[in-house]
Amino acid sequence: MNIQKMKKIAVFTSGGDAPGMNAHIRAVVRTCLARGIEPIGIYGGYEGMINGNFLSLNRNFTVNMISQGGTVLKTSRCEEFKTKSGRKKAYENLKKFEIDGVIACGGDGTFKGAHALYEEFNVNIVATPGTIDNDLYGTYYTIGFDTAINTATEAIDRIRDTADSHGRIFIIEVMGRHAGHIAMDVGISTGAEFIAVPEVETDVEELYRRIQNMREHTRTIIIIGEGGVFLGANELSLELKKRYNLETKYTVLGHIQRGGTPSVKDRVLASHLGMGAVDGLINGKTDVMVGRIYDKIKYTPLVEAWRKKKKIKEYMFELSELLA
Amino acid sequence: MNIQKMKKIAVFTSGGDAPGMNAHIRAVVRTCLARGIEPIGIYGGYEGMINGNFLSLNRNFTVNMISQGGTVLKTSRCEEFKTKSGRKKAYENLKKFEIDGVIACGGDGTFKGAHALYEEFNVNIVATPGTIDNDLYGTYYTIGFDTAINTATEAIDRIRDTADSHGRIFIIEVMGRHAGHIAMDVGISTGAEFIAVPEVETDVEELYRRIQNMREHTRTIIIIGEGGVFLGANELSLELKKRYNLETKYTVLGHIQRGGTPSVKDRVLASHLGMGAVDGLINGKTDVMVGRIYDKIKYTPLVEAWRKKKKIKEYMFELSELLA
Amino acid sequence: MNIQKMKKIAVFTSGGDAPGMNAHIRAVVRTCLARGIEPIGIYGGYEGMINGNFLSLNRNFTVNMISQGGTVLKTSRCEEFKTKSGRKKAYENLKKFEIDGVIACGGDGTFKGAHALYEEFNVNIVATPGTIDNDLYGTYYTIGFDTAINTATEAIDRIRDTADSHGRIFIIEVMGRHAGHIAMDVGISTGAEFIAVPEVETDVEELYRRIQNMREHTRTIIIIGEGGVFLGANELSLELKKRYNLETKYTVLGHIQRGGTPSVKDRVLASHLGMGAVDGLINGKTDVMVGRIYDKIKYTPLVEAWRKKKKIKEYMFELSELLA
Amino acid sequence: MNIQKMKKIAVFTSGGDAPGMNAHIRAVVRTCLARGIEPIGIYGGYEGMINGNFLSLNRNFTVNMISQGGTVLKTSRCEEFKTKSGRKKAYENLKKFEIDGVIACGGDGTFKGAHALYEEFNVNIVATPGTIDNDLYGTYYTIGFDTAINTATEAIDRIRDTADSHGRIFIIEVMGRHAGHIAMDVGISTGAEFIAVPEVETDVEELYRRIQNMREHTRTIIIIGEGGVFLGANELSLELKKRYNLETKYTVLGHIQRGGTPSVKDRVLASHLGMGAVDGLINGKTDVMVGRIYDKIKYTPLVEAWRKKKKIKEYMFELSELLA
Repeated sequence: MNIQKMKKIAVFTSGGDAPGMNAHIRAVVRTCLARGIEPIGIYGGYEGMINGNFLSLNRNFTVNMISQGGTVLKTSRCEEFKTKSGRKKAYENLKKFEIDGVIACGGDGTFKGAHALYEEFNVNIVATPGTIDNDLYGTYYTIGFDTAINTATEAIDRIRDTADSHGRIFIIEVMGRHAGHIAMDVGISTGAEFIAVPEVETDVEELYRRIQNMREHTRTIIIIGEGGVFLGANELSLELKKRYNLETKYTVLGHIQRGGTPSVKDRVLASHLGMGAVDGLINGKTDVMVGRIYDKIKYTPLVEAWRKKKKIKEYMFELSELLA
Repeated sequence: MNIQKMKKIAVFTSGGDAPGMNAHIRAVVRTCLARGIEPIGIYGGYEGMINGNFLSLNRNFTVNMISQGGTVLKTSRCEEFKTKSGRKKAYENLKKFEIDGVIACGGDGTFKGAHALYEEFNVNIVATPGTIDNDLYGTYYTIGFDTAINTATEAIDRIRDTADSHGRIFIIEVMGRHAGHIAMDVGISTGAEFIAVPEVETDVEELYRRIQNMREHTRTIIIIGEGGVFLGANELSLELKKRYNLETKYTVLGHIQRGGTPSVKDRVLASHLGMGAVDGLINGKTDVMVGRIYDKIKYTPLVEAWRKKKKIKEYMFELSELLA
Repeated sequence: MNIQKMKKIAVFTSGGDAPGMNAHIRAVVRTCLARGIEPIGIYGGYEGMINGNFLSLNRNFTVNMISQGGTVLKTSRCEEFKTKSGRKKAYENLKKFEIDGVIACGGDGTFKGAHALYEEFNVNIVATPGTIDNDLYGTYYTIGFDTAINTATEAIDRIRDTADSHGRIFIIEVMGRHAGHIAMDVGISTGAEFIAVPEVETDVEELYRRIQNMREHTRTIIIIGEGGVFLGANELSLELKKRYNLETKYTVLGHIQRGGTPSVKDRVLASHLGMGAVDGLINGKTDVMVGRIYDKIKYTPLVEAWRKKKKIKEYMFELSELLA
Repeated sequence: MNIQKMKKIAVFTSGGDAPGMNAHIRAVVRTCLARGIEPIGIYGGYEGMINGNFLSLNRNFTVNMISQGGTVLKTSRCEEFKTKSGRKKAYENLKKFEIDGVIACGGDGTFKGAHALYEEFNVNIVATPGTIDNDLYGTYYTIGFDTAINTATEAIDRIRDTADSHGRIFIIEVMGRHAGHIAMDVGISTGAEFIAVPEVETDVEELYRRIQNMREHTRTIIIIGEGGVFLGANELSLELKKRYNLETKYTVLGHIQRGGTPSVKDRVLASHLGMGAVDGLINGKTDVMVGRIYDKIKYTPLVEAWRKKKKIKEYMFELSELLA
């Protein structure tokens, strides 16, 4: 591939959808147009790349997209792309449609695929962090995270009405795969009495003590991120019953955390990274993720982006202890 | 008890909380004050009645209450009240605090308790329909129903973003105990491809056919009310897998449907029924539920309110077929 | 025109947009398809009818439309249509595109145009009430009203945070043209201390007395519907300053009341009226508005729909006095 | 005053209210309790300080406060405090109630008062940035800003439905006093065609050209921050009419931008700064604002906080050009 002069840049979304993906696609399209590049959309992620679902995009396509949840380019989890022959087909289509550079928006699965395209076929590819989990290294936030924590908080504010009215103990499971970013932010913002994150082994005895201390306050909210020692809210609820004969209600927030109109932060971040991705390709970047750390655009090697661990800030643990 | 002149009216909430309960309490308090009656709050439902948690309420108590979810008087599910001796204690407290009339806000469990108080101790008692399920006879809507269906719809609009992005089939379980009112309204308002209500046996074959026909449209939303043949979304998902090897995602909306700030409809209805309850007691009504049907306040014998079945309107079934 | 067998039905939206218009269009399209009729969309209201912007619609067109605010068929206020020659052009297009029946969604201006088409050219036309103002006779609610009052209430709940924090008097103007339906519902649901509707002359002295009585409660909310004696919040604020030297803040909610995703009520009503409009045309109805009163579809002569006055329910005035 | 050992810390809110102030008060109270300090609330800002409205706070006071808009400690704009004798009274009360340190949450007016208390009476005082305008130096964000931009964006998303439906040009005025932070973030997140901020002189000719170019896209959204060359949306609308005979609609978002439940960002920031303020006082800080920049707590001299100008990031201007 030739980056001397980018003529066509293709963009696609892959893996779990995240609010802000459409704002991101819009920014890629408009930046391309402003730079004299033809923007191409690949429909259905890697599957669409294999099947040749390529479409030229224009400004009209992007009208009002900034506020829409989900992704208009659709997404998929594609088994065929995990095979060498699948990736070969995908590459053949990139060549056939004369794509000079590719922007891949998604999470770590997406990044592994992008890295393979670079390794095997020398594709010019820049990935962008589109996942609500915020579990990628090289960016302060991922696209979708801010919306997801606000959606979860709003839902838990509702549950708190019920918890208050009944004086109940509620265990609420939020998303996050193997990272506690969502749980930690949501736990602090809902004033949870206990926050269980995968990064730290849950001390059930301490949790029980905390609940006992709190009982005067008529209700208790416990936030648990999926993927820790206790795989979910259900397991923790059973454990508390078994060990201490404690009655708790549990609820799994589930898929509502993914959708909805993106927050301002997500729209602006998604726009900024869209500009950063196009300009990265123009400047010869490849095999990298474009992220933003403290207002600065950063390009991080793809392998680092999914391998290195982004830590939860120390002060978040401190706040969760102090204010619970 | 003496209704010649009501001097003190007590109000409490019981069973599952519902949005609008606070608007209702506010209306009871303010109507009492306007009628020269002292309003008394009983904290914690029947449990509070047994324990003597009675408190005099005033106008200041009700400031800004109209928009709050849950119930500031708290609620409970009380085992002791199911015994004769428990109810005796409760009655003794009503006497001790010189309560002339009682307003009980809740669902069918609450109503059974209220009816027993009337039967056994001749308590002047008017019940008000406070439940999101809308499953009580004698009122067009129950307090909380309109908020719950809007909350559920908003949540499903979010899930649809994900369903669209992935082209997935989603089975979403909403509340409703043994009535399909929530499922039906939410199903139509989210444009669901299939709505399964407890009132009608779910025809899985028909459901499968419907899904097959819809596949061109990239995603399918199925709304299921709890309490039908398939007890929930999980069971239906497993059945579709077993019978047709069909992959579906399921999600249970759960407790988020209960909380939150009440909708305008719920605030106005709760206010209207508050006035109707106080004025009913003043006019000698007892052992009844106050409801509203087509803008008219109606008093229905408590036994009918929970025994008779409120049907889903025929046109709702028609719409669900026609527009799916 | 021939109603023996409707082959093509055209639908359009006109005047101010209202949430639920898209749900309505969706229902018209799907009902047409179910009845074997080709649905045609006219873009841009009467202007589009004059310019021949007709497009055949299909099921795909309606996917996910149920939750969208505004109207995808666009709308306009068209001066040319107010002339005979303009209407002639419009009619010629209806003939040219072989339209057998027309569904016109909008408010009283739209209805007058529809009535003229019937009077002058014998067009088979059924109008549907699409306006947030709820000021049309022959239907309990208009499409958009329920969403508008919820949007306004949510906005005022926010303002109340500020009013409370400062102990201020806020005069808030809501929409409604010359009808107080929005003001009344919003006033009760926000617990306003005073509600001024165009239907009743505002008693400024009484208002002042009310404010004085309320001062202990730290803040006062006054809701005013546009179009009364005081044309708006600004005028009332000035009057209170002039007469009593009373400082008040005023705010005009404005266009935010029109947009947004429709509420469940509006989606279901819009769907129901869509079915009712198509089936009305099939059954030979013309020059009527299709409305719903107490769950029953009603066809009201167009002239009555805009001339007769829909009154605010008595109990709403009673509640506004009692609970303020 | 003696900081050897803080025994009592007083907290108050002043000036315009902002979402997150309650989360902040909660954090101050709980941090005090964890550090063995008695937290005191001053009601009604500087006015309350003058009048001696001091109240001891406890943990129960803070239950569920984290999600509430406005400020439970009330706020005011106090003329008397601008006089030396007023401040003397305030100081006497601080002495009388044995306050060792004070936390003042508000904007620049609040800061000036706090600085005067330090200068004249050597009060140990730390200010915290509580204002939606984000116009204070020494902190990346102020408490309330993130909520305000999300509220404004949500409102404008609604207006866009109407703008789209009619193909209209809308000029929307957002808050911000003399800083364009709100306008810039909101403008980018709503995909505005033009953003007018006080920091840059509005080029009306360029604006007109931009509008002309956009007309193909059926609607135009222009965001204007108050306090620029054109003092508001109304003036700009008139100017466009005068110069180019261009019809536009304008709307002023107004007070809805202040209220509502705070966003996650605002809750977490408010909590963090609450901890930072208490710990600052304990460590001898005074006459400073506590802010957060890039995850680090920073103490900035009060005079700098309101005198130095916080600039809008360069990339925001770039994005607003590129993506409009």
